Amino acid sequence: MDRRPHIDRQYEQELDELHQKVLEMGGLVEKQIADALRALIARDDAGARTIIERDRSVNRMDVEIDELCLRLLALHQPTARDLRLITTALKITTDLERAGDMAENICERAIELNTEPPLKPYIDIPRMAEIALRMLRESLDAFVREDADLALRVCQADDQIDALNAQVFRELLSFMIEEPKTITRGIRLAFVAKYFERVADHATNIAEMVIFMVKGKSIRHMDQVPPSV
Amino acid sequence: MDRRPHIDRQYEQELDELHQKVLEMGGLVEKQIADALRALIARDDAGARTIIERDRSVNRMDVEIDELCLRLLALHQPTARDLRLITTALKITTDLERAGDMAENICERAIELNTEPPLKPYIDIPRMAEIALRMLRESLDAFVREDADLALRVCQADDQIDALNAQVFRELLSFMIEEPKTITRGIRLAFVAKYFERVADHATNIAEMVIFMVKGKSIRHMDQVPPSV
Repeated sequence: MDRRPHIDRQYEQELDELHQKVLEMGGLVEKQIADALRALIARDDAGARTIIERDRSVNRMDVEIDELCLRLLALHQPTARDLRLITTALKITTDLERAGDMAENICERAIELNTEPPLKPYIDIPRMAEIALRMLRESLDAFVREDADLALRVCQADDQIDALNAQVFRELLSFMIEEPKTITRGIRLAFVAKYFERVADHATNIAEMVIFMVKGKSIRHMDQVPPSV
Repeated sequence: MDRRPHIDRQYEQELDELHQKVLEMGGLVEKQIADALRALIARDDAGARTIIERDRSVNRMDVEIDELCLRLLALHQPTARDLRLITTALKITTDLERAGDMAENICERAIELNTEPPLKPYIDIPRMAEIALRMLRESLDAFVREDADLALRVCQADDQIDALNAQVFRELLSFMIEEPKTITRGIRLAFVAKYFERVADHATNIAEMVIFMVKGKSIRHMDQVPPSV
C-alpha cells in the first residue's frame, strides 16, 4: 500500500477529520433509523416527530463534509489514492443523507399507522432493519479501513433484504385481499419495508464505491471494466 | 464571473468533454424513461425488455464520467470554480444513473402488469412522466449553462409531481378498496407512479447541486448556510 510521501501535518489531520466526520454522520444516521424502528413498534407519535426534526442535523453534516472535501481538493494536491478517498467521501455522504431520509419517511408512515389499530405484530420488518443497519455500519467501516473484502460482504448481504421485502409484501398482499379494510395499513407497511430495503441499497452503493476506491476499478456495473485513471 | 486565467487547451477540451458527456448521459436516461412510459402504455413486453437491457449503457457512461472527473482532478489543479464543476459532475452522474434505474423498474412492473387485463386508462401517470422528464432535462441544461435561476425553477416544479402522485395513490386506493381483485395491479401502478416521482426527485437533487455549484452555497438543506470554501 502506498504511503503518501510528501504530506504536511495539517493535511493529514484534515484527512483524519474527514474519516471521523463520515463515521460521525454514519453513527447519527444509524441512530435515526434504529430510533425510527423503535417509534414504529412502540406507536410513539412524539418520538417519531423528534426523529423527523433531527433529520436537519444529518443534512447539516452532509453539507459540512462536502465543504471539507472541496477544501481538501482545493488547498492540497491529492495523490491518486487520496483523490479517490476524498471523491468517495463526497459520494458517500449523498447516500448517507438519503439513508437518513428513510428514517424520516418511516416516521411519517408510523404516525399515519397510529391513526388505526395495529394490523399485526412486527416480525420481518425488525429483521430487515437489523440487517440494513449492520450493512450500513459495515460499509462505513470498510470505507475507513479501506477494506474491500468487508465491502464485498456488504454487497452480498443485499439479497437477504430483498428476499425479506418480497416476503413482507406477499404477506401484506394476502391480508389486503382477504380483508379490504386493511388496505391502507397494508400499503403503508409495504412502504415501511421498502424504506428499510432502500437503506440497505444505500449501504450497498457505499460498499461498491469503497471497492472502487480500494481496487481502483468499478464493480458498480459488472458488465464493464473502466480504464484506469 | 471569473475566467480561468492559466488553462491549457487540452484541459479546456476535457472540461467541454465533461459537459458533453453529462448531456449525452442525460439524453440517454431521458430516452429510457420516455420509452419506459411508452412500453407501459402499449403493454409492450419486448420493448420493456429492451429498455431493461439498455440500462447497461447508462451504467457504462456513469463509470466513464467518474473516470474523466478523477483524471481532471488528478492531472490538473482545478481552480475553485472548476473544482465545483467537476465535483458537481461526479455527484450528478450518481443521480442520473439512479434516474435511469427507474426506467428499468417501470419496465419490470409493466411486464408484471401485462399478465392481467388493464385496470384503467393512463391519465395522470403520463402527466407525471412529462413533468419529470422536463425537470430532468432542465436540471442538466442548468448545469451546463451554470444557470441557477433555471435550477431553482426545477426545484419548485417538484411540488406538482408530489401532488399528482398523491392523487394517483388516492384513486388507486379507492379502486382497491372497492374491488379487492384489483389490489395487485393497484399496488404495481402505485409503484410506477412512485418511480416517476423519484425521477423528479433526482432532477431536484441535480438542480440543488447546480445552485450550490453556481452560488457557492447549499440550498439543499435550507436550515443552514455552510461556511464558504
